[in-house]
Amino acid sequence: MSSVFEQMHKFFNPSSVAVVGASKKIMKAGHVIFKNFADSKRRGVFQGELYPVNPGEEQILGYKCYPSLTEITGEVELVVISVPARFVPKVMEDAAEKKVKVVAIISGGFGEIGKHELEERVRTIAERAGIRVLGPNCLGVYDSSTGVDMLFLPETKVLTTGDEVVATPRPMPGPIAIVTQSGAFGVAALDYLAGRQLGVTKFVSFGNKIDVNESEMLEYLLHDEQTRVILLYAESIEAGREFMDVARRVTVEKPIVALKSGKTEAGIRAALSHTGAIAGTDRIYDAVFKQVGVLRVKDMEEFFDAGKALAFQPPAAGRNVAIITSAGGPAIMAADECESRGVRVKRFSDETIGKFEALKEAGKIPSFATNLNPLDLTGSVTSDMFVEGMKILLEDREVHSIIVIGLHHAPALQEDFVDRIAGLAKNYTKPIVACDIGETEMALYIRFRFDKHGIPAYFSPEDAARAVVALVNYGQYLKKTGSFERYVEKFKKNKT
Amino acid sequence: MSSVFEQMHKFFNPSSVAVVGASKKIMKAGHVIFKNFADSKRRGVFQGELYPVNPGEEQILGYKCYPSLTEITGEVELVVISVPARFVPKVMEDAAEKKVKVVAIISGGFGEIGKHELEERVRTIAERAGIRVLGPNCLGVYDSSTGVDMLFLPETKVLTTGDEVVATPRPMPGPIAIVTQSGAFGVAALDYLAGRQLGVTKFVSFGNKIDVNESEMLEYLLHDEQTRVILLYAESIEAGREFMDVARRVTVEKPIVALKSGKTEAGIRAALSHTGAIAGTDRIYDAVFKQVGVLRVKDMEEFFDAGKALAFQPPAAGRNVAIITSAGGPAIMAADECESRGVRVKRFSDETIGKFEALKEAGKIPSFATNLNPLDLTGSVTSDMFVEGMKILLEDREVHSIIVIGLHHAPALQEDFVDRIAGLAKNYTKPIVACDIGETEMALYIRFRFDKHGIPAYFSPEDAARAVVALVNYGQYLKKTGSFERYVEKFKKNKT
Repeated sequence: MSSVFEQMHKFFNPSSVAVVGASKKIMKAGHVIFKNFADSKRRGVFQGELYPVNPGEEQILGYKCYPSLTEITGEVELVVISVPARFVPKVMEDAAEKKVKVVAIISGGFGEIGKHELEERVRTIAERAGIRVLGPNCLGVYDSSTGVDMLFLPETKVLTTGDEVVATPRPMPGPIAIVTQSGAFGVAALDYLAGRQLGVTKFVSFGNKIDVNESEMLEYLLHDEQTRVILLYAESIEAGREFMDVARRVTVEKPIVALKSGKTEAGIRAALSHTGAIAGTDRIYDAVFKQVGVLRVKDMEEFFDAGKALAFQPPAAGRNVAIITSAGGPAIMAADECESRGVRVKRFSDETIGKFEALKEAGKIPSFATNLNPLDLTGSVTSDMFVEGMKILLEDREVHSIIVIGLHHAPALQEDFVDRIAGLAKNYTKPIVACDIGETEMALYIRFRFDKHGIPAYFSPEDAARAVVALVNYGQYLKKTGSFERYVEKFKKNKT
Repeated sequence: MSSVFEQMHKFFNPSSVAVVGASKKIMKAGHVIFKNFADSKRRGVFQGELYPVNPGEEQILGYKCYPSLTEITGEVELVVISVPARFVPKVMEDAAEKKVKVVAIISGGFGEIGKHELEERVRTIAERAGIRVLGPNCLGVYDSSTGVDMLFLPETKVLTTGDEVVATPRPMPGPIAIVTQSGAFGVAALDYLAGRQLGVTKFVSFGNKIDVNESEMLEYLLHDEQTRVILLYAESIEAGREFMDVARRVTVEKPIVALKSGKTEAGIRAALSHTGAIAGTDRIYDAVFKQVGVLRVKDMEEFFDAGKALAFQPPAAGRNVAIITSAGGPAIMAADECESRGVRVKRFSDETIGKFEALKEAGKIPSFATNLNPLDLTGSVTSDMFVEGMKILLEDREVHSIIVIGLHHAPALQEDFVDRIAGLAKNYTKPIVACDIGETEMALYIRFRFDKHGIPAYFSPEDAARAVVALVNYGQYLKKTGSFERYVEKFKKNKT
């Protein structure tokens, strides 16, 4: 039997796909899914064979339509099923006969609404035939580079006014993989990442998990070169030992950020009625995640923020962070958040403070700048001052990471400070994150520009601090497991 | 002597203003400030007299320029000073001679850089003359309705490319007042609120606080009809007893949301070097705020989120929240956040569950919807289903607040669900907040539309939950002080 990697690979990179339930009717999931593949094929992105299956149609979008899987002459590696639940066992029988390797069952109407017997029938057929199954009741797979797109939610939606607007965007290719138990949240995550111009390698939604589970997907993503960070949303994780084993092997190679919901009594009740899973005591998850190096976050925003930080910055070699700022108040907020999460904003060394004093004497930073950490360049800040300050912090061996708070409102600060900081940073593997506050043109420009240079930028000082917390905690885990140097070397290589 | 209200009122609504240090040079603060007033006067918003003071100019922007305050013939109520620190005592002497009532000293270069003696001289002159002083080293005042605008940061900034972009926007008129110790953060807050289309009544930045402090401003805002919520940013609060006294009187009339930084050792050190203030033990602030009903938030985002919730929604009459959702995962996240912050997501009453079951039987919501709390209408949700669910929750006396999680990705959900929910909600004084996740067109549209109806919308389930936490905690305080009914009556009156 083929390896887990080879099996999972077929979901993301099939040589041939049949969509059972493909349809001409635009409101049908089977239409959207088939059209995704057809569009992708026309553009030369999806390069496999494509077959619509529907006994009621002759042709769909120019493709010859087959009445059943067994009528297809060529080989079929992947089947995507989008027909009413009661027809799924028959489709599975056909898939078995056709020697299909992997099946994604998008259709709902199984265990999640109490139809356990139907679900069990599907599982038995698959097991007997050696077919690996994703779902049922899931959104399946989206792969930004191979053109596999099983999301039945069309990219645009037509409002009651007749206007067509983007509703469920597909993010561009990028370093982040999303593994999610909740389809709805997964789609929302794609929408978020697309809007923030963060790229995604692969997306997979499990639904009822009758076969393929998160452990196998993690195993696959471990070997997937494009994936640099894994974002995992879960309400429950079964097969604890298997999960721990694979997570341990993954996290020394690439970070896993976990948003595990169902923490409180009410949350657990909600999780129970959502997927029928027993969420278990939350503290156990805390302990397990910690042990195997999975970075657990406290909410949705930190989930994305940490993912962005880890995708673009190296981990921190130690717990000391320096804050360089144009604004005192926000620097205090960042310092508070760092310290309360175990990242140290310790007083700079006398040597470093001496260097700042020398800059003052030379008139290169304001004489009234405070410089114990934070280094507060005040509202008189210029691009030059940020550059001078950064040079010293990047060289300081006691500083393991840097938060740049550059509020664009400062009158003499030109926007080129972003490019200049990025230029300096290239020569170091010291993690840097940035913050600018505001929601109008200039703030969006500054944050976007930092992001573009691979310096993740955040809209609040505490968000920036939490991003550093992720980089520090991951660095600490890598150090503990003796894999820090290797990871950083690989990170550097990937970057260039 | 006039009342504190009358004194403070002159900062926001002066019958005459002189800008000392007014200039033609566009890079000078005195230019920007004078131009703000002149522009505002030309548009008929600022209706007081306006005088530029600068011995080096004959005319500025068409206004006759005076060599000193004492040369002005008419009365001068408010003076805004933007000249180098060393000239400020002389300007204060002139102001005393001219019988000026209030002065805002924008200029820096006093206590914050160790020039305590200079600061003391200014304070003494002011005290002797009975002049109330804001600052020095502050951004002063912005009032969206009277046209007073002392912000020396121009609204737009020119990039190195030559493009002019919005850099420091002024928000439109609205219900939120901002009282801030940090000018830089205050400006960033204006930028944020403007971008999110949240309106501001008044903005005041204190700087070194040699005279006017937050307690007096709170006293003023207590009596300011337009202000419905006060956002207070502080690194330290002196005159604790005075603050407690006034805060206690304010919070039974309108909420105060406080972001107090300087919580950790590093944060306190940073605060100390920022404003020279001893931040004191953080726990004392916690206790004081709690005692007088000030709602303390944990970070910048919650600061704005809570402000928005309290500005547009009534407080909750009790701790029970209902969650109605199209997506299971995000509902669990919201439930977790509520419960961990003391807001109860308790199982609905049998009566309410019975009503949902009846809806299922009538085919009005999906038969597989879970309905214990959260009410999960699933990805099959339609506008009608949200309406049916909301009707029951709004009527349920055991439900004190509602979180609506309506992810626009659900294929059959039309955007009119927002308007329809808002239409229903109008007949109740039960607080409602909303969440949609995503950053592309449709998500922005849905959140904006909710906001427009006065139902504050958030981009993450936890943010929505924290907004409810603020509404619940404020409601609890009002109940405890016996002012809940009166507040809600007034809230209803203001709304219509």
